Amino acid sequence: MSQQAPKDMAAERVAAEFDIEALAHHWHGGRNNYIIMQKAFSLIKSDPELVVQPPRNFVELTKDESREFTMGQIHRLVKLLQDPVIRSQGPEFGEAIFQALVNYSESFSMRIGVHRALFRNVLLMLGSDKQRDEWLDAVDNYRIFGCFAMTELGHSSALRDIETTATYDPNMDEFIINSPTITATKWWIGMAGKTATHTMVIAQTYIGGKHVGHNWFIVQLRDRSTGELMPNVIAGDIGHKVGRSGLDNGWIQFHHTRIPRTQMLNRWVDLDRQGNYTPAPSPVVMYATLIPERVMLVLNSMLMVSHAVTIATRYGVVRRQGNQNQQIMDYLSHYGKFAPAISFVYMVRSAANTLDEQFKILTAGGNMDPEVYMYHMGDMHAISACMKGLTGWYGSDILETCRRACGGHAYSAYNNIGQIIDDWGVLTTGGGDNVVMLQQTAKILLHLLTQKLEFDVYPTLKFKSSTHYFIRAKEYLAIPQWHVTDVTTCLDDLSLIEEALHAILVKRLNTIREELKAGATHNDLLLDSVRAAEMHAAAFLYSDAVGKYSKADSSVDPGVAKIMRRLTGLWGLHSLHTYSDQGFKEGFLTPQQVKQVEKFYLATTKGLRKQLIGLTDAWGYPDFVLKAPIGKYDGDIYEPYFETLLMSKNSIGVPSYHGKYIKPLTDTE
Amino acid sequence: MSQQAPKDMAAERVAAEFDIEALAHHWHGGRNNYIIMQKAFSLIKSDPELVVQPPRNFVELTKDESREFTMGQIHRLVKLLQDPVIRSQGPEFGEAIFQALVNYSESFSMRIGVHRALFRNVLLMLGSDKQRDEWLDAVDNYRIFGCFAMTELGHSSALRDIETTATYDPNMDEFIINSPTITATKWWIGMAGKTATHTMVIAQTYIGGKHVGHNWFIVQLRDRSTGELMPNVIAGDIGHKVGRSGLDNGWIQFHHTRIPRTQMLNRWVDLDRQGNYTPAPSPVVMYATLIPERVMLVLNSMLMVSHAVTIATRYGVVRRQGNQNQQIMDYLSHYGKFAPAISFVYMVRSAANTLDEQFKILTAGGNMDPEVYMYHMGDMHAISACMKGLTGWYGSDILETCRRACGGHAYSAYNNIGQIIDDWGVLTTGGGDNVVMLQQTAKILLHLLTQKLEFDVYPTLKFKSSTHYFIRAKEYLAIPQWHVTDVTTCLDDLSLIEEALHAILVKRLNTIREELKAGATHNDLLLDSVRAAEMHAAAFLYSDAVGKYSKADSSVDPGVAKIMRRLTGLWGLHSLHTYSDQGFKEGFLTPQQVKQVEKFYLATTKGLRKQLIGLTDAWGYPDFVLKAPIGKYDGDIYEPYFETLLMSKNSIGVPSYHGKYIKPLTDTE
Repeated sequence: MSQQAPKDMAAERVAAEFDIEALAHHWHGGRNNYIIMQKAFSLIKSDPELVVQPPRNFVELTKDESREFTMGQIHRLVKLLQDPVIRSQGPEFGEAIFQALVNYSESFSMRIGVHRALFRNVLLMLGSDKQRDEWLDAVDNYRIFGCFAMTELGHSSALRDIETTATYDPNMDEFIINSPTITATKWWIGMAGKTATHTMVIAQTYIGGKHVGHNWFIVQLRDRSTGELMPNVIAGDIGHKVGRSGLDNGWIQFHHTRIPRTQMLNRWVDLDRQGNYTPAPSPVVMYATLIPERVMLVLNSMLMVSHAVTIATRYGVVRRQGNQNQQIMDYLSHYGKFAPAISFVYMVRSAANTLDEQFKILTAGGNMDPEVYMYHMGDMHAISACMKGLTGWYGSDILETCRRACGGHAYSAYNNIGQIIDDWGVLTTGGGDNVVMLQQTAKILLHLLTQKLEFDVYPTLKFKSSTHYFIRAKEYLAIPQWHVTDVTTCLDDLSLIEEALHAILVKRLNTIREELKAGATHNDLLLDSVRAAEMHAAAFLYSDAVGKYSKADSSVDPGVAKIMRRLTGLWGLHSLHTYSDQGFKEGFLTPQQVKQVEKFYLATTKGLRKQLIGLTDAWGYPDFVLKAPIGKYDGDIYEPYFETLLMSKNSIGVPSYHGKYIKPLTDTE
Repeated sequence: MSQQAPKDMAAERVAAEFDIEALAHHWHGGRNNYIIMQKAFSLIKSDPELVVQPPRNFVELTKDESREFTMGQIHRLVKLLQDPVIRSQGPEFGEAIFQALVNYSESFSMRIGVHRALFRNVLLMLGSDKQRDEWLDAVDNYRIFGCFAMTELGHSSALRDIETTATYDPNMDEFIINSPTITATKWWIGMAGKTATHTMVIAQTYIGGKHVGHNWFIVQLRDRSTGELMPNVIAGDIGHKVGRSGLDNGWIQFHHTRIPRTQMLNRWVDLDRQGNYTPAPSPVVMYATLIPERVMLVLNSMLMVSHAVTIATRYGVVRRQGNQNQQIMDYLSHYGKFAPAISFVYMVRSAANTLDEQFKILTAGGNMDPEVYMYHMGDMHAISACMKGLTGWYGSDILETCRRACGGHAYSAYNNIGQIIDDWGVLTTGGGDNVVMLQQTAKILLHLLTQKLEFDVYPTLKFKSSTHYFIRAKEYLAIPQWHVTDVTTCLDDLSLIEEALHAILVKRLNTIREELKAGATHNDLLLDSVRAAEMHAAAFLYSDAVGKYSKADSSVDPGVAKIMRRLTGLWGLHSLHTYSDQGFKEGFLTPQQVKQVEKFYLATTKGLRKQLIGLTDAWGYPDFVLKAPIGKYDGDIYEPYFETLLMSKNSIGVPSYHGKYIKPLTDTE
């Protein structure tokens, strides 16, 4: 058994019908990026301040050890980024080291992410040029650590309900930040527990006794030299969490804390010395900060999914069980789940890149037609929200699939899947609850569809947005049933599935629209709306990939292009199968078609069975990042797994409590 | 916000349309049982050896602390059970104390369960009277601790493939137990890590050079006085796991370990001094041990689900959010999930009781017709396996629902849901992988259906078994479509849904049968088989409850009977909705019916919205068992939640690593 495993693994790589290295280059955005990334992994691998070295094991760190180790990683990273030798290799290498650490530790990723992405982004997008000049250098050189105080104990991120107040005192030219109740306590704030010197705070703003809406403020939390709390601020560690024990999530209470007026972010709003307040031109500018963060969250969540999928896929080809002593990956219950999961990871990466580019176009060009800009921002908000919903939920399912596919061995902490699932715990609710996210998408979709259907409003857009298919809304509504009688033709012409998904979506959204008009409440249709929004995300992934891969592209290795087309086709079939209930409800799909879709979908997963190892190899994760002996690259899993647990302290021997609790019972006649 | 919460909670209790206490009595099997159980909870609550006392928190115990604390609980429990004052209150009270601890700690539950249920049951069911006389008293008085060594590193519980051998040496009249390879190492064995003095071992048995099958052997692992390992046995702790850190799962290797011939369990098999081996009369007698264990596993898993559901339901009624500042439980995405989850808990408890009774009939009476006995045993195996599958998977979904329904606060370890999910991690794969379990059910169902359809074989049974509906198989096959045009009538006559579920099942199973005959492989139809088997379990739950609650029963409080009927009806609609794809595939349900079922199902969940708190109250879990401030009985959640984390060590203050990692970066200009 244990000798067979590496042979089985090697055979899988031989069976790949594409050049795994070429796909790895494609995945990393070019050969050069791939090489730099592998170099970064090599650099961190043996650094004891960045990676836990045997016999210590990453999963065995206590909460306090993990909090300390993670801060040590940040300290070491900053030193490395300032090191002349590292700097001489270009900024890409520094970024690759950062990315390598993001891969290695979710706690690191979120702890530094709070500072680098949340705090810094809010400063850049909502702070004036002057504020940027004042703060950015300290942020970028880690002279301050910033956090992001939005959520409160009693109010999650429903901004309307937050209780923290910022009241302008014209006599002193200061704002007074206050937490009036226990439920106003800022809660879950990453880095607020022990580390952050500063925070961005969102608060209900009162000027001249009048509520003027929400604003963001910079408040200092701790002394930069001593680490002690500033006067009138109390903050502490949130304690034990389900995952990410290296991140000091915290809580903050403000007790009439005073800050200068100039620490209200004022790129879009303003308050002069006389107390005259100018509101933002549109609430869109205030929301826009959340879009890139959400896209980043989606991408980072896919790292976790791809790690778990790599581990479970590898275990699946070296473990044999059953009547014919098969590889367990040969069971439909295995490959039928892993093939779409892997395809999903590829689709999300590709679509997230597209959204990044689109967001750059929107924020860079100043000369855009306001109507077009607003349309795109609405659409971007909608698609980023439902992508978060889809990746959060389907990602959860995939992780659970990985857990179950590894049998009992996923229950061992030494195989990392449990840790990934624990770290994942925050994602379906944090950063915007998924139900709320999908509801928001649904509302925007319903609005845009109404605009199109009732007023024929559809601006000429800058790029193909996620709701592009609404252009053909009337046409879709007029089609009673899907015309495809032989589903197997769908992989020859990928647009067939695209049309089906879009037709179903338009019909479903229109039904919801009509039921609302007929008096149904949003709550009555909540599950329908959420499901339609989720399907919109799945369809966007498909459209995006069809656009990229359906035609020959000379810049892409032909083998790579071919496997990407196969993954795209599988994703389309997966989406059509998953949401066939939606098509069925609309009478668009017949029972016969639904059965055909299922059959062909499963057959397509079977066709990819032997490609799964190559597809996960291309992601290029070293063993030390995966932290799972059962997911080792070479398939030689059993001895290293056993050795890992033998390295644990007190693994063998009489327990310290034997005399106290066991002997008194057993040592009697 | 924080003042409103207890008021909201109180209003929920007022809204209950049944007597909560009467339902609590019903749930506990009578008023007396309920009172004893509450007394047991009171007894353990303040005992520092049984329950972690503040300021320490159960979730903060390290792995080693948890292992020790759990053994301390066992030691204390044994002392309590031997205490004359406790004994004077009858064996029910001792059992209630045990159950109270099972509720309090999953680690305790499984650690002692290995000894009390697994080791002891195997001895009772497979050991001869002589062996029972020799060992039982030591087991029941904890002079030995027994574990159960089935799974191996390389083979989970696929018995055919296990590698451990037991070779009879006629010269010494001994068996030699051996682990020939690393993958033969017994793995995951509860209590083998540090505690167990003895183990049951299943091994490939060789007598006179011939393989005679599997047998169970008693092997001593550790000295009862010193706790040291016995010669030629190596065992150790499996280390860090995803959950149940108080249980010392372990691994065992046998190095030509010798035991007397008399330590082979020989109720059904025998080996005499001359080396003559008598095999078991039927393999059924060897499998039968697993049935009650599986039913117990199902029941215990429902404890975890009901704990999480109680916490999340309570949080759902005290948390307010949204446009109208609603209780979040008022959202369809909340009550639409919790109503069926709560109904499921009630259904499973009821059905598990039925199975327990049926198993007693089967094992008690010796004068049963062999054909009837075999039929029932096959059916019992099938239903217990698919119940494990359904509860494992739907239970996972419910726990994830609970996690998401609590927003970020389920990510705090102090609210226990994360811990429950971690502890749950072992259930979908341990004790028989769910896919394998459901496959086994499907195979038995297909066999029995074939017997009925092709040979009209159906014995006159002792009781209504899970496949009872096969009697009407031909009739069901002849019905083209469901006759019900107004689904809302289904709650007036609960048999309508029962017939629909059974008709769909017979049709689905028959389709699978025909596809197999036409040349499809079992693997091709794996997902279909597994889904049909899962649906069979759901239908059994429904039939069982319909049998119990559809008619007036003078022994049950009328209000209780009424709410139980409503829960039963909801479960039926839930099942019909969940498996409507199956009915649709068979053309039995029209799109119109599927849509009607969904609408009426959701409306029925809405009708139960205000009953949810009362329904969870009836389970009678004290706050200290739930370990979740956000799930407090009185709804006063925020201050206790905050106080809980303030009790944690180093909650506030400059971290120890400030000078090393933070100050060097921030204390610069």
